[in-house]
Amino acid sequence: MPALFTRIDHVGIACHDLDERVSFYESAFGLSVVHTEVNEAQGVREAMLDVGGSFVQLLEPTRPDSPVARFLARNGEGVHHIGYAVDDVVHALEDLSAKGLVLVDERPRHGSMGASIAFVHPKSVGGVLTELVQPRD
Amino acid sequence: MPALFTRIDHVGIACHDLDERVSFYESAFGLSVVHTEVNEAQGVREAMLDVGGSFVQLLEPTRPDSPVARFLARNGEGVHHIGYAVDDVVHALEDLSAKGLVLVDERPRHGSMGASIAFVHPKSVGGVLTELVQPRD
Repeated sequence: MPALFTRIDHVGIACHDLDERVSFYESAFGLSVVHTEVNEAQGVREAMLDVGGSFVQLLEPTRPDSPVARFLARNGEGVHHIGYAVDDVVHALEDLSAKGLVLVDERPRHGSMGASIAFVHPKSVGGVLTELVQPRD
Repeated sequence: MPALFTRIDHVGIACHDLDERVSFYESAFGLSVVHTEVNEAQGVREAMLDVGGSFVQLLEPTRPDSPVARFLARNGEGVHHIGYAVDDVVHALEDLSAKGLVLVDERPRHGSMGASIAFVHPKSVGGVLTELVQPRD
C-alpha cells in the first residue's frame, strides 16, 4: 500500500501574538516567513515559515470564538495540529472515512497558500488534530 | 543568517500503547516503521515511521516517573514535542543559550537512531517542547 501521507507539510502552532512569535522564530532559529494570510472562515491570522520545504505555521486567533482561540483558552500556547501532505485530499477523506476515522471536514476547504485541506478529529488519531493538505498545483 | 533549523526531523507523539498506535498509523495512513528503540535514560519505548524523509516518532513510557508518563498523566495522548534537524547540535546549543533561551539539556545526549539531541524548554518557545537533532553521519 502506498503511503497516504507523503511528507510532513507543517506543524501548526497556536500563539497569542503572531508578530512577536514570528520575530522569535526568525531571530532564534533563523527561519523566514514565506507567506502570511488571514483566514476569516477559520478565524486565524497566520504566517508560514520555511523549514527545509516543510513549514512552521504560526496561528493567532482573530476572534474569541474561533477554534484556535478556544484551544488557547483551554491549553495555552503550543502545538495545535500536524499537517501532512496528501496527493488527493478527496480520495484521502474517502479512504479514512471508510476506515472508520471521524472527520472534522467531510469535504475539503480552503487552506494556506491555496491548498485544499481537511481535518481529521483528534479522537480518531490518539489526541492529534491531523490535517490533510493537498498543496496547490 | 543561515537557518539554524534545516528541516522538520520528526513529530514526537505520546501514546499509552505503542504497538496499538503503530498499527493504527500503518493501517490508516500507510506509514512504515523504520526503527524501534528503547531509551532507558528517557524511559521510553519508541517507533520511528517514515513520512517522506521526516518521521512520526511514537513514544510509550516504560516507567511511571518518566517525562512522557508525566506528560500523559497531565495532558493525555497527543503531540509531545517537535524535533528539528541542525547541522551541529553543540553549536546550536551555544547559540540558543547566548540568545537567552532556557535549555533542558546543556549538553547533547543520545537520541533516536544514533542522533545527538538536546531539548529546549517549552517556556522559551511559546509552549512547544523543541528538540535539536543532529542525525548520525
